[in-house]
Amino acid sequence: MKYVDINCDMGESFGAYQIGNDREILDYISSANIACGFHAGDPATMRKTVRMALAKEVAIGAHPGLPDLVGFGRRNMDLSPQEAYDMVVYQIGALQAFVQAEGGSMQHVKPHGALYNMAVTRAPLAEAIAEAIYKVNPTLILFGLAGSELTRAGERIGLRTANEVFADRTYQQDGTLTPRSQSDAMITEQSQSLQQVVRMVMEGRVLSRQGVDVSIKADTICIHGDGAHALEFARSIHTACKEAGIILRSFQTTA
Amino acid sequence: MKYVDINCDMGESFGAYQIGNDREILDYISSANIACGFHAGDPATMRKTVRMALAKEVAIGAHPGLPDLVGFGRRNMDLSPQEAYDMVVYQIGALQAFVQAEGGSMQHVKPHGALYNMAVTRAPLAEAIAEAIYKVNPTLILFGLAGSELTRAGERIGLRTANEVFADRTYQQDGTLTPRSQSDAMITEQSQSLQQVVRMVMEGRVLSRQGVDVSIKADTICIHGDGAHALEFARSIHTACKEAGIILRSFQTTA
Amino acid sequence: MKYVDINCDMGESFGAYQIGNDREILDYISSANIACGFHAGDPATMRKTVRMALAKEVAIGAHPGLPDLVGFGRRNMDLSPQEAYDMVVYQIGALQAFVQAEGGSMQHVKPHGALYNMAVTRAPLAEAIAEAIYKVNPTLILFGLAGSELTRAGERIGLRTANEVFADRTYQQDGTLTPRSQSDAMITEQSQSLQQVVRMVMEGRVLSRQGVDVSIKADTICIHGDGAHALEFARSIHTACKEAGIILRSFQTTA
Amino acid sequence: MKYVDINCDMGESFGAYQIGNDREILDYISSANIACGFHAGDPATMRKTVRMALAKEVAIGAHPGLPDLVGFGRRNMDLSPQEAYDMVVYQIGALQAFVQAEGGSMQHVKPHGALYNMAVTRAPLAEAIAEAIYKVNPTLILFGLAGSELTRAGERIGLRTANEVFADRTYQQDGTLTPRSQSDAMITEQSQSLQQVVRMVMEGRVLSRQGVDVSIKADTICIHGDGAHALEFARSIHTACKEAGIILRSFQTTA
Repeated sequence: MKYVDINCDMGESFGAYQIGNDREILDYISSANIACGFHAGDPATMRKTVRMALAKEVAIGAHPGLPDLVGFGRRNMDLSPQEAYDMVVYQIGALQAFVQAEGGSMQHVKPHGALYNMAVTRAPLAEAIAEAIYKVNPTLILFGLAGSELTRAGERIGLRTANEVFADRTYQQDGTLTPRSQSDAMITEQSQSLQQVVRMVMEGRVLSRQGVDVSIKADTICIHGDGAHALEFARSIHTACKEAGIILRSFQTTA
Repeated sequence: MKYVDINCDMGESFGAYQIGNDREILDYISSANIACGFHAGDPATMRKTVRMALAKEVAIGAHPGLPDLVGFGRRNMDLSPQEAYDMVVYQIGALQAFVQAEGGSMQHVKPHGALYNMAVTRAPLAEAIAEAIYKVNPTLILFGLAGSELTRAGERIGLRTANEVFADRTYQQDGTLTPRSQSDAMITEQSQSLQQVVRMVMEGRVLSRQGVDVSIKADTICIHGDGAHALEFARSIHTACKEAGIILRSFQTTA
Repeated sequence: MKYVDINCDMGESFGAYQIGNDREILDYISSANIACGFHAGDPATMRKTVRMALAKEVAIGAHPGLPDLVGFGRRNMDLSPQEAYDMVVYQIGALQAFVQAEGGSMQHVKPHGALYNMAVTRAPLAEAIAEAIYKVNPTLILFGLAGSELTRAGERIGLRTANEVFADRTYQQDGTLTPRSQSDAMITEQSQSLQQVVRMVMEGRVLSRQGVDVSIKADTICIHGDGAHALEFARSIHTACKEAGIILRSFQTTA
Repeated sequence: MKYVDINCDMGESFGAYQIGNDREILDYISSANIACGFHAGDPATMRKTVRMALAKEVAIGAHPGLPDLVGFGRRNMDLSPQEAYDMVVYQIGALQAFVQAEGGSMQHVKPHGALYNMAVTRAPLAEAIAEAIYKVNPTLILFGLAGSELTRAGERIGLRTANEVFADRTYQQDGTLTPRSQSDAMITEQSQSLQQVVRMVMEGRVLSRQGVDVSIKADTICIHGDGAHALEFARSIHTACKEAGIILRSFQTTA
């Protein structure tokens, strides 16, 4: 049997500002990455999102980001590893308290946006993030780009890690994502996107834009929760996996 | 034997901005209320302050405040009880993660500034705060003004509470603090302040400004960490208690 | 001939968060109150909104609010008059710079949310706001609730003021708005709402909920820019005024 | 006769947090760069600092920074030129309103910290900053590092610029500052620092760390307002210039 987890960013509303289709998308995913108030999210949104995820039996993870609300945590910042450590500890803790208050438990941590991207290639930053997670709770699972410095740092420190793959991004020969600056970085046709996902899970391979197959470990599939077609896309991936005989489940279920 | 705890607000620096004499004052107190990033404090300051408190064996508490950094959490805001609940859960969690990361445990929660003051008289707000603490961790101790709605709410929900008294404030016939708008709200002479504290602990009584004795329960004495004479005052209270045969200890020690 | 201005809050998006139908609603109003970054809005949104308003020849006003982004400036805060003065100067200035950069000029200032509401009854706060506007630019027009402390303070200091009326709120015998805590505070039926507006402009009177007519000065009609029916409602008010022979124009036009 | 301006960052306190010796240092400088609320400063501090500067007849400039209060605007961020333009317009405007309210006029703009540093080498960012200043008020003077992209961008767009030199930094053969990562980046001996400043002003030359003389244009000398010896250093530079016969004056004086 083949298993896979589907994760999606959640709880990114802020005060009067609503973003995403959290309630609906929760029906199609197994892990929710909940924003922690730095790049998005606020205490009320965190409480509501935690409750919804628990009610729908979706595993919960912290989704810490850069302290850049106006930039939605998407702008790189020159952080020291110590600063990254501190902001990840803080944000994991904030979400953890809502999970505790509701009687649940946290499964994972997935850094957001620029923090995630910078940790793909910057080993000291990746190590600081991994250490923050480990020191708060060594049973948390680190979600990171397959084959990145982030998952490597997690493994080195002793964390369980989950290799993340993307349905709507193309891959390069070396297994990395095609940078968004390239015109063919995104897969816009849905059928192609679904095929790629199913093949990554079933065969552990992806066809790179250079035309050669590349090995890839697909523990969890990232889908995006905002945008006009997010909900439809979530449903399609969910269906495509099921039809291929892939069992959708979080890591908590398998623990 | 008589026992008392001495608590002080800590970790109220922010980024490049330094406030307080935390390192020195830790020598004279048994419980540290550490700011959690809303009215003051930031992740780096929280980490450093938690480490210092653990190194000096001072018990650690969360010091959640209003989301008003420029006002230092001192301006009343019309919060709903739900909003208060959410922001207290969030802040306790953030501090708790730093304590976990350092292998320590949290003892108490003391709301800050306007949040503390509003909860003295507003029962629904007090209940929301107490519930937030209880749901995150029911073994946490709630620090509140002796005889206030806050400590009453804590008791009702099943929290252990600590009645807080002030060395530098005068009391009224009904046991409440003289409002700061009154000219004789503050005790400016140090010897009088020390006498009041020792008598509250030893005899459970305080001489009100109306000239009659009032019963008061003094579990913990609040001292202020900023201001020119904070350190000297902390040392004096510490000495005065010792000389009166009062044993200084946190509630963790007695657990 | 009868004239009236229609104003609407604008530019309340923030970073990745979009709110309102600014572009469409601009077609039906004569004055835009643009958020200045405290309760809502950010520099990019301010620039874009100023440009849109200038392109559609809608007069521009600053819409300063409380420093409470997560509460959208709707929660009362205990501000000193000095604090209110300072935050209004700051926000007017920030918007003014975008208007200058685009070669336009600013027409008015309308405080937002809790700042507006508190200034209806609190004279010292109202005076601080009026003084802030006057000192930055004495030709700015102060928009405030008809018959409030805010417009009175503006008149005293020498500002031109515009009395604001609401289409969707009921009035009391003394000319004040029925508090939202009352069940009949809002007018939910659109035809009644339009009739009330037209009558306020044409006759200077409104039927209070106590059943007696009250005099009211209607210089500008406030409409709301968010909500499902905002755009339709804006269009209806615009049409109803036109059909009644009322000429819609800002105060800049009449200067 | 030789003239020079001395500038210093000011108004970097925030709420309860005090930084700098603004009142004293104003006696030794001719231009004050006042923080605008993004990296430091708040509306109350801006008002007070503007008043102090006007009272002491020190010329006023805006000191816009990155939206990073906890990092004091010192961490590089990946801003688009448009984002930089917007945040500079906003901040100039905010300060300008306080200056208008006090009946003064603004002389200059000097970007702060990481925004200043990034604009030394990144031409598109420098151009966005220069355009922001020009569009708000084309008579403002742009302060930037002598020989940087920032001053070049200012000149291209038609702004008057002031070349800034540093008393406490060493220079390289190509006229740039020695990066702080180098051990000899800072001049720690005060006499050497004063000699360098006087020579830059009198002779237009500085001895580089490679041992050869380099031409440099010194329109304004930057001194730092915080740190233990800031005040003493300010006084010494002031005295050294006077003793060398250099006349200290702002650009407003010379206009």
